[in-house]
Amino acid sequence: MHLDTNFDRSGIETAVAVLQQRFGDRLTRNAGIRREHGHNVSMLKNEPPDAVLFALDTAEVAAAVAICAEHRCPVIAFGAGSSIEGQLNAPFGGLSIDLSRMNAVLSVSPGDMTATVQPGVTREALNSHLRDTGLFFPIDPGANASIGGMASTRASGTTAVRYGTMKDVVLAVEAVMPDGRIIRTARRAKKSSAGYDLTRLMIGAEGTLGIITELTLRVFGIPDVIAGGVCTFPSVRAACEAVMATIQCGVPIARCELLDENQIRACNAYSKLSLEEKPTLCVEFHGTEAGVKEQSETFGEIAAEYGSSGFSWSTDPERRKKLWQARHDGYWAAVALRPGCEVFSTDVCVPISRLADCVEETQRDLAEAGLFAPILGHVGDGNFHVLLSLDTANAEEMAASERFTGRLVERALAMDGTCTGEHGIGQRKAKYLRKEMGDAVDFMQTIKAAFDPQNIMNPGKYGF
Amino acid sequence: MHLDTNFDRSGIETAVAVLQQRFGDRLTRNAGIRREHGHNVSMLKNEPPDAVLFALDTAEVAAAVAICAEHRCPVIAFGAGSSIEGQLNAPFGGLSIDLSRMNAVLSVSPGDMTATVQPGVTREALNSHLRDTGLFFPIDPGANASIGGMASTRASGTTAVRYGTMKDVVLAVEAVMPDGRIIRTARRAKKSSAGYDLTRLMIGAEGTLGIITELTLRVFGIPDVIAGGVCTFPSVRAACEAVMATIQCGVPIARCELLDENQIRACNAYSKLSLEEKPTLCVEFHGTEAGVKEQSETFGEIAAEYGSSGFSWSTDPERRKKLWQARHDGYWAAVALRPGCEVFSTDVCVPISRLADCVEETQRDLAEAGLFAPILGHVGDGNFHVLLSLDTANAEEMAASERFTGRLVERALAMDGTCTGEHGIGQRKAKYLRKEMGDAVDFMQTIKAAFDPQNIMNPGKYGF
Repeated sequence: MHLDTNFDRSGIETAVAVLQQRFGDRLTRNAGIRREHGHNVSMLKNEPPDAVLFALDTAEVAAAVAICAEHRCPVIAFGAGSSIEGQLNAPFGGLSIDLSRMNAVLSVSPGDMTATVQPGVTREALNSHLRDTGLFFPIDPGANASIGGMASTRASGTTAVRYGTMKDVVLAVEAVMPDGRIIRTARRAKKSSAGYDLTRLMIGAEGTLGIITELTLRVFGIPDVIAGGVCTFPSVRAACEAVMATIQCGVPIARCELLDENQIRACNAYSKLSLEEKPTLCVEFHGTEAGVKEQSETFGEIAAEYGSSGFSWSTDPERRKKLWQARHDGYWAAVALRPGCEVFSTDVCVPISRLADCVEETQRDLAEAGLFAPILGHVGDGNFHVLLSLDTANAEEMAASERFTGRLVERALAMDGTCTGEHGIGQRKAKYLRKEMGDAVDFMQTIKAAFDPQNIMNPGKYGF
Repeated sequence: MHLDTNFDRSGIETAVAVLQQRFGDRLTRNAGIRREHGHNVSMLKNEPPDAVLFALDTAEVAAAVAICAEHRCPVIAFGAGSSIEGQLNAPFGGLSIDLSRMNAVLSVSPGDMTATVQPGVTREALNSHLRDTGLFFPIDPGANASIGGMASTRASGTTAVRYGTMKDVVLAVEAVMPDGRIIRTARRAKKSSAGYDLTRLMIGAEGTLGIITELTLRVFGIPDVIAGGVCTFPSVRAACEAVMATIQCGVPIARCELLDENQIRACNAYSKLSLEEKPTLCVEFHGTEAGVKEQSETFGEIAAEYGSSGFSWSTDPERRKKLWQARHDGYWAAVALRPGCEVFSTDVCVPISRLADCVEETQRDLAEAGLFAPILGHVGDGNFHVLLSLDTANAEEMAASERFTGRLVERALAMDGTCTGEHGIGQRKAKYLRKEMGDAVDFMQTIKAAFDPQNIMNPGKYGF
């Protein structure tokens, strides 16, 4: 099961020359563009590809992959460049295939509540396109990521508690496989029990098994009414317990975001607010007028039992936005905290019953390590982000943050959690994959070696 | 990618002898027991294994698989024996590992709404166990199937429209792989973006990649209130359109079953009812008192727009049961239709917008073929079952039903549907897998050959 990462430079050079002939101007070796395509929202160093191809359709992707396969040249798919754990770096050089021009919404079926899109469509563009149909695509990872990239990293975000993750909303994909062949993993039926679930295999594979060139998605009716609100709790534990009790009661929370004391402090400073510096939940409900009212009231009652300050909520869009302002400003508030520093986000996910333990231990750990980092949690999933505010010029601080991340992962694993809830493995979490999965990683490697014996598809990710 | 199905009888005999020594009485070669373990609720002939092992724990399954691997003996996992498309037959002989004694509910976490179970637990036993916790396991394929079998065939059923299929409710599995190694595919966190999705790969693999020996499941709060009701429509199309409109409005239907005219006729005869012989929907809503009332009324209004007779519904359990009686008796009513005949169920699934077309064309096809078969549909998923009532002694009728199944599948595929919505591939749908999936089947074979180069895990299924 050896996955060879020794690439012959001359093979890569030949591939790029052949690609240049085939694609002309749409292949570039411009240093700035190459650097952008190795760019990651991460603390990893930039590792640019040798060339970038702006592909226009599936046939072009297939042709490019076939050329790379012939000459053993690494291939990295690029969507919007918003991945976080080093998914886009090219540690062995090779070709970045930029899919941002494959950005068509190919069809929408309101009756079936499905949409078929090219991978370069961003989630905001898709939602603009859908607006007139009364439908929307719910997955919201924060960044205006591409749908192909979101699928490839198994993204989720604030609405996963209600609508699931990318694995739940992708019905089928078309993909170019490592030998250049094009497959379709499923039909447009809402469910099927035919064959191995290649759809889910491609989702989260970070381009290591092939390149997703088309996706059929489940979309949802825009809710009649959205209620949003906010309340504070005496502790992170009380906030988490209130959410658990609410979910157990069958209340379909649509979003449910925890901001810890540090995050609130940052938001007060950034947005000139005067919020109580206590663990805070921003909650949202989707449904009918009567439905969201009942849900908001039930949540308010449960929150009060757990010592909440009282749940302020509204269905008025302007008022909702105001109530959620701290959450909306969360990232930028963290950035503003330490001028000249950069914010790096990392995440873990644990069973919800362990979330309070994990957050509280992490807060203590941060304090002891002398690191400053607000915490933002998707409580309904047991998932939280640590927004590390770091001076990248300070080697000791960078090293401390790396050691902290290791302890964070160990803590989550000890609680039967995962080293990454929604950011993926990429380069940076590769060393934790086997700790989390044990021998199961051997079977992942088996699939990788069988699909891609030359190891040309995004080599160096997953530790492969 | 050759999957060899030439098994050496002497290897199988040696394996059985070694297993006999290891497991004593719990390994049997009794003809009746062997026949039962090749049994399928299908029109396929019985192909019994050479021996049956009643395994008690994961270590025993691993030991048995390792012995079978050493001597190249086929291994078929057996749960409750309720699969439909020939998943349990042993066309090349070998060992059936009966998991029905591995029937413990290992743990339940009400806070996390998860349960960890052995594969031999049946869904009814699990729900009995959960009752006191206020939780339930929603997937309901009809039969009292085992959870391991339901995962392995990617089962779903009447509640999939609300709660999803087995792929959606299984968080993680432990599995014995073809070399006897034990892996765990995920942690107990509700979501993760770490590594390839081996959980979903094992779900629906019908035991061809390994044997599931433990499952961590999502469970749900027992609804406060259940409303159930029934109404008739002037046509299958009107019924389907009413459901589509209801779902588009965001009404969270929990069950939504179509009974065609023939099914109603059969139920009237069997249960001495006097229902109107028209396409009928049995619908259910789960929620709060106010919630299910609002949902039932909204559905009633929409149904009326599509020509429904008026939606009768109730939250009283006895009354609900009465309203749903035709649906509950559906299968037995079909069995009673032609005394001396057997009922064989087959299914397809299409995008919901094509469901009316597919059902109507299928009704015409059945009439032209001289076959009598009620149709039962899970409308919210675009999935329906044809209950063929067949005289198994009549070769011409059996052949006609086989030809009919072929046309049914072609029809579903032409509508971008699947050859099986929830029964799986097994032996009987194997010939349709490539028609549906094209070259994607090559990549399934690649996985199979890489995991199980000796082809010992349930050989002959999927056409492998």
